[in-house]
Amino acid sequence: MKIIKGGICSVDGVKASGVCKGKYGMALISNPDSAAAAVFTSNKVVAAPVILTREHIKDGAISVLVANSGNANCFTGEQGQKDAYKMAEDVAEKLNISPQQVGVSSTGVIGRKMPMEIIGELIQKGIDALEHSAEGSANAAKAIMTTDTYYKELSVETTLNDGKKVRIGGICKGSGMIAPNMGTMLCFITTDIKATPQELESSLKKAVDESFNMVVVDGDESTNDTVIIMANRKSGKIDENFQEALNFLCIKLARLLARDGEGATKLIEVAIKGAYNKEDARKAARSVVKSPLVKTAVFGSDPNWGRIVAAVGYSGAQMDPDKISVILSSDNEEVNIVNQGKVKAFENTEELHIAEKIMQKEEIKIMVDLGLGNDSATAFGCDLSYDYVKINAEYTT
Amino acid sequence: MKIIKGGICSVDGVKASGVCKGKYGMALISNPDSAAAAVFTSNKVVAAPVILTREHIKDGAISVLVANSGNANCFTGEQGQKDAYKMAEDVAEKLNISPQQVGVSSTGVIGRKMPMEIIGELIQKGIDALEHSAEGSANAAKAIMTTDTYYKELSVETTLNDGKKVRIGGICKGSGMIAPNMGTMLCFITTDIKATPQELESSLKKAVDESFNMVVVDGDESTNDTVIIMANRKSGKIDENFQEALNFLCIKLARLLARDGEGATKLIEVAIKGAYNKEDARKAARSVVKSPLVKTAVFGSDPNWGRIVAAVGYSGAQMDPDKISVILSSDNEEVNIVNQGKVKAFENTEELHIAEKIMQKEEIKIMVDLGLGNDSATAFGCDLSYDYVKINAEYTT
Repeated sequence: MKIIKGGICSVDGVKASGVCKGKYGMALISNPDSAAAAVFTSNKVVAAPVILTREHIKDGAISVLVANSGNANCFTGEQGQKDAYKMAEDVAEKLNISPQQVGVSSTGVIGRKMPMEIIGELIQKGIDALEHSAEGSANAAKAIMTTDTYYKELSVETTLNDGKKVRIGGICKGSGMIAPNMGTMLCFITTDIKATPQELESSLKKAVDESFNMVVVDGDESTNDTVIIMANRKSGKIDENFQEALNFLCIKLARLLARDGEGATKLIEVAIKGAYNKEDARKAARSVVKSPLVKTAVFGSDPNWGRIVAAVGYSGAQMDPDKISVILSSDNEEVNIVNQGKVKAFENTEELHIAEKIMQKEEIKIMVDLGLGNDSATAFGCDLSYDYVKINAEYTT
Repeated sequence: MKIIKGGICSVDGVKASGVCKGKYGMALISNPDSAAAAVFTSNKVVAAPVILTREHIKDGAISVLVANSGNANCFTGEQGQKDAYKMAEDVAEKLNISPQQVGVSSTGVIGRKMPMEIIGELIQKGIDALEHSAEGSANAAKAIMTTDTYYKELSVETTLNDGKKVRIGGICKGSGMIAPNMGTMLCFITTDIKATPQELESSLKKAVDESFNMVVVDGDESTNDTVIIMANRKSGKIDENFQEALNFLCIKLARLLARDGEGATKLIEVAIKGAYNKEDARKAARSVVKSPLVKTAVFGSDPNWGRIVAAVGYSGAQMDPDKISVILSSDNEEVNIVNQGKVKAFENTEELHIAEKIMQKEEIKIMVDLGLGNDSATAFGCDLSYDYVKINAEYTT
């Protein structure tokens, strides 16, 4: 497997575009004759485009995605449903396909009527701009940004067991992992793998469980979160090499999301091992990466192992304080600060000194060995800074 | 029922003291011949004094509490256990009671050995200072403060069904609701009610469920959290009037804790009604009060109803976006910003204008009617400010 250029357009046949007008952006992605699968937010409040796309993907076939930023089309009642459908219809008509083939996503302010005149204009411009090029992918990635500080895309190529090469491209946006205003997580993936919708769905779920579902910026969950994969089936049959590549792509994109969380100055990766079971490993990893006290400690470069251990303690995972070990690492430095329940990073110790140095880095890995079993999980997050408060306190409805 | 003066010493026979040395504080409370009950943290990492006090309260009898601030005696291994017992033994010897009669609490830094020499000094000073006076209560409340900005105490008197008057006094401290460093929630309650330990425990649990268990400052849960009630049985028999007074006292103290959360500038009260069941009401209330997006919106005085609705949506509680109503209030102002799924506080509406005014107040009540059933719950919290980040990022181990 290798990282290649081209983003979502690295895949044969995929066209993409991204256009903007004022605060509104519009991305279009076309991957003709695709099987598709998706994972949506589990929030009980869902936006109109999520309801629509859930319907459209039921038959396992979506070939075009249209996604706007600037308005989430959420809490917009019946009109919102009509507007979401209108977007699909508009795109379908212009590309001469069925509206059922079109998936719709929106991100932005909630509770506001969609500006359908502008949306219509942008769809036309987007259709005209569709191109099979690295620029098309980058423009699409840029068009869906809200509070993101950089656009996020990645593409990989791997060789399947049958000898064929397959490509996977993805773009995504954050960055509060949350949506009420700005911050939905959206990820659009293209590939040429040959797979049934069921196989795609199972594969996507596995990848999302290890990646986007393990990202916590602030713990709030969006009304619009969507991950969609469209597979045009021009390459070989789905196998474990594809799964490995899809996991890799999703984890890399998830790290980019976490690193660009609102106000983030540092990436935090929490790797739990030795858990009693997989669910415990996931719970503990998410609990540590979500803890405001851990997040502020990382922001303040304070190797505060007590906060880490306490966050494991209230995570609901089985744990024994006498068996827990905590290791901090960054780049090529690593230090064991708690070893099987014994604190090593006391005041004036070499351990504390190294831990303090590590905490000043931009990517910090916290490894916790629960010492109880063989299951592991990794979560991704970011520190909690003054800027997180600023961004979210000063945004006005 | 009425509020009276005297704090924990408003109860006949209760003596209290609070003394300090450097960063260490020590509170002592004596309520001779008491039945007692307690509620402890559910964190799997628990401090040595919690383990000890759990043991000592098993027979339902604790008459003296000794509580220090400055060191949490947590993650301190066997030595920590010995130190906690030594504190109980020391106090017992000086008061000529059994160590089994003494409850111990600690709050402060974790993972550091207890400074037993200073602790010993403070216990002696504390014993000498014990007095049945309002000052004794206030001093005890002050001695257990960590990042609290004011001390917290309250006392009430009510008339039982049998005509007898009963008193209840309480002191507590916050303020991060969390402990790894500073911030354990401790609450000590005295009363002269006549009750068995089982009756006391049942009554305390009910009160804690409506009060301290509904306070969220940052969602982190301490390793040392403890609420203890000591009842000297000099008044009448426990009944629903006592329960009402105990609930009132605990809710008032919980509000004081929330209002004094780390960095807090505002108190947030979230009242859910119309929930499908009680558990749903509690989940939804806690989810809204805990949401970093709601908390920053309150800090920024932004009536961002979308964040409120989304936090209910991911709380796990049953909800129907078309049935939800949201009302904001403060002092004598009130505004309905979402009515049965219809947004009323749009741009340039009178509703938004009033909502913005309410959000600038220091005590903000968010009422959410789920429109699904008859259960309700209220949670207490505070906004998320720059100072929360500052306090927790700049504290060094």
